[in-house]
Amino acid sequence: MPNVTIEEFARKLRTREVTALEITDACLRRIDELQPSLNAFIHVMTDEARRDAEAVDRELASGRDRGPLHGVPIAVKDIIDIAGIPTTAASRVREDHVARADAPLIAALREAGAVFIGKTNLDEFAFGTTSENSAFGAVRHPLDPSRSPGGSSGGSAVAVAAGMALAALGTDTGGSIRIPAALCGIVGLKPSLGEISTDGVVPLSKTYDHMGPFAGTVGDARLVYRALTAHSGALTAQRGSDLGAGSGADLPRSVNNLRLGVPRGYLTDLLDEDVRARFDEAAAVLRSAGAALTDVSIPRAEMTPAVYVHIHSSEGAAYHAHTLDTVSERYTPVVRSRLEVGRYVLAQDYLRAMDGRALLRAEVDTALSGCDALILPTLPIPAPPIGADAMPIGGRQEPVRALMLRLTQLFNVTGHPAISIPCGMTSEGLPVGLQLVGHRNQTERLLSTALVVEQSMGAGAGHSQ
Amino acid sequence: MPNVTIEEFARKLRTREVTALEITDACLRRIDELQPSLNAFIHVMTDEARRDAEAVDRELASGRDRGPLHGVPIAVKDIIDIAGIPTTAASRVREDHVARADAPLIAALREAGAVFIGKTNLDEFAFGTTSENSAFGAVRHPLDPSRSPGGSSGGSAVAVAAGMALAALGTDTGGSIRIPAALCGIVGLKPSLGEISTDGVVPLSKTYDHMGPFAGTVGDARLVYRALTAHSGALTAQRGSDLGAGSGADLPRSVNNLRLGVPRGYLTDLLDEDVRARFDEAAAVLRSAGAALTDVSIPRAEMTPAVYVHIHSSEGAAYHAHTLDTVSERYTPVVRSRLEVGRYVLAQDYLRAMDGRALLRAEVDTALSGCDALILPTLPIPAPPIGADAMPIGGRQEPVRALMLRLTQLFNVTGHPAISIPCGMTSEGLPVGLQLVGHRNQTERLLSTALVVEQSMGAGAGHSQ
Repeated sequence: MPNVTIEEFARKLRTREVTALEITDACLRRIDELQPSLNAFIHVMTDEARRDAEAVDRELASGRDRGPLHGVPIAVKDIIDIAGIPTTAASRVREDHVARADAPLIAALREAGAVFIGKTNLDEFAFGTTSENSAFGAVRHPLDPSRSPGGSSGGSAVAVAAGMALAALGTDTGGSIRIPAALCGIVGLKPSLGEISTDGVVPLSKTYDHMGPFAGTVGDARLVYRALTAHSGALTAQRGSDLGAGSGADLPRSVNNLRLGVPRGYLTDLLDEDVRARFDEAAAVLRSAGAALTDVSIPRAEMTPAVYVHIHSSEGAAYHAHTLDTVSERYTPVVRSRLEVGRYVLAQDYLRAMDGRALLRAEVDTALSGCDALILPTLPIPAPPIGADAMPIGGRQEPVRALMLRLTQLFNVTGHPAISIPCGMTSEGLPVGLQLVGHRNQTERLLSTALVVEQSMGAGAGHSQ
Repeated sequence: MPNVTIEEFARKLRTREVTALEITDACLRRIDELQPSLNAFIHVMTDEARRDAEAVDRELASGRDRGPLHGVPIAVKDIIDIAGIPTTAASRVREDHVARADAPLIAALREAGAVFIGKTNLDEFAFGTTSENSAFGAVRHPLDPSRSPGGSSGGSAVAVAAGMALAALGTDTGGSIRIPAALCGIVGLKPSLGEISTDGVVPLSKTYDHMGPFAGTVGDARLVYRALTAHSGALTAQRGSDLGAGSGADLPRSVNNLRLGVPRGYLTDLLDEDVRARFDEAAAVLRSAGAALTDVSIPRAEMTPAVYVHIHSSEGAAYHAHTLDTVSERYTPVVRSRLEVGRYVLAQDYLRAMDGRALLRAEVDTALSGCDALILPTLPIPAPPIGADAMPIGGRQEPVRALMLRLTQLFNVTGHPAISIPCGMTSEGLPVGLQLVGHRNQTERLLSTALVVEQSMGAGAGHSQ
């Protein structure tokens, strides 16, 4: 039951094979069972979720059907405001905080009938890639508790992968949705920059922050994405633009029409052997199914980490300047030192990075010009051991943080929508993720592409559980 | 002849009372006569202008009429590219530069039939308010050569005020169009932020830079503005939006319908006595003609200089970093030291200023909510003596640069369109300017308002010459 998809659950709910309360209770039992070992949640909303699920069952009995998310238990990264609940951001800096109102994206899902099951654990203020620097302790990987599930939205990914929720919300500033989705073997979507409101969410880097869903399948992720955008007008405008660009017929519906670009160079030249093998197999499967894969170039991709860090650390430091001055002892030491670095970045270097950002955006646009999407691994490595600072790759040791961000952060810099879908397992049984990157402001087209790719890859690359 | 308006010239050109070559030659004679004393030009385009004027006369004779700017001699601030001509930005840093192509705004005026008469003098890289820090020497005020005509677009303002061109182009980063327009007794328009392309223009502060026209009357400024926007699509969109906001009937056509907001506090509390007298008289004239003037508040206007300088100096330093490192000796000492300051601004302070900028933008929107426009002086002082660092005002000495920018820079921070129109003379016979500030992205509505105000103020506040 807990690993049912949203689409399956929605059918069963309406044929009365299951009630909203039953699915919520199943998720709550799973949380009870796994929380001691995985530490995915900071706050479990048992009473609120059961009350909301009962209300869903009454609504449906009375004939009011809110659509595919009605009654669906959803976990929420604890950096997003739910009215009446603390938003800790996994930090002691926010002790005593209670959210006054729902963030707009929470309000959108509430309107769609979702049941919020709890607030998930993360790296403090989302400033991490492993979910181990939390005031509430590290999140652990469901397949191997000695490993990180990835971060910063690690609790949300684990909740979905381990059947504690049918979907979850995360934030992605350098890869924080796609990284844990890939490492946990589920789907994680970062929509186009600016598409989903970041109001009511604690910022990390204001010009990089994206909101998005985790789910078990691309179809489920699309259901949550559409609910998130339904009330903003963004979806309508974008569907119009997608249609306008090619009259709807342009949306990929079959692998035969698919044109995928493989970025050569920086983004694919340093990969763990198992990751490379799974990626090459996926490419071969897609080719043999009829997709056209061509090499594309993003000539200045090597600039990405330098561009990324100057903007990210400056914007992070600007938000935290006051609390760093007044309550610095409440931060975890690792996150405090990362934030402090940003206080010494010069404005001229921030602005030079912004110029570099515009160049990179244009280069990714160019790489995409003849393609439906770019295709590359989501990370160069599988889930790292908790506590590891470096990992062996390509015959040398590389810093874990740089490796974790290496293939995802470019698309926060440029704002292109990107999704991670499962792509098989390493020889040690750890999930590998496949990343698809779409045209800016064409998230629906990316989702259509991802559906086709997911179908083509078939049962060989399924859930991690 | 040289002080003819564009509208008058256009009529006379078509009734064959004057030719394009005759008006161009009249302007060139005026330049010859005044250049030694006023130093308004860096490069006079005698041959090109005469050749272009002859071509206009041939085109008109053959029946091709490009509209109201056809054959109009226009001066161009020497920071804007005209193909084949050096763009010096009044700096030795740009020695040997020759522009390869017309800037888009030059191309738009060329398409409209304008005749470019020369490149005008300015503060080096537009970083000044007095036009005295130029590698080509100071520009001087046409009514008193011991005084500054204002800056940084001082040469463009002097060219129009003294009849060396019928209109001119300038750039406005903190007031550099409105300030010299006011001090020279002509009209200067800063359109809404982003409305006119800054491509092909040497940047000063990328998020503050605006392009706009100088002219003798509001009607003439509107003709140039419309030609500048005609090819960008901006005008169409905006007219649609203006009309949408109130079906065209909303555009002010009579002083009786006019609602003007007078910002109290920081923006009007420190004024030279003559400036205050002229402003109060203008307000009285408008009130007695039937306009409704109400006090409005911009509570955090005092933050403006701090917000302004952090963004301005950071963006300036980012652009100049390389030449400051390699050829710093080529800058004028004053501009070099102003630019160097920007190299030490921290990114977190730049970003805090950006947050302040958003607050100020919202406050100006609020102040405008019940009004057609805000009305205030353009500067708190008349033209300062060249070389003055401070001026007496309100019983104390204040720095000239801060005074010059005090009433204009807010609207570069917020992006609202603003125009300066003549508002009489001081007891010493120096022009005073009246500033009108419109709703964002509603420059046409601001121009309609300014036309009504100009008519109401009548002959009492005319040309300085």
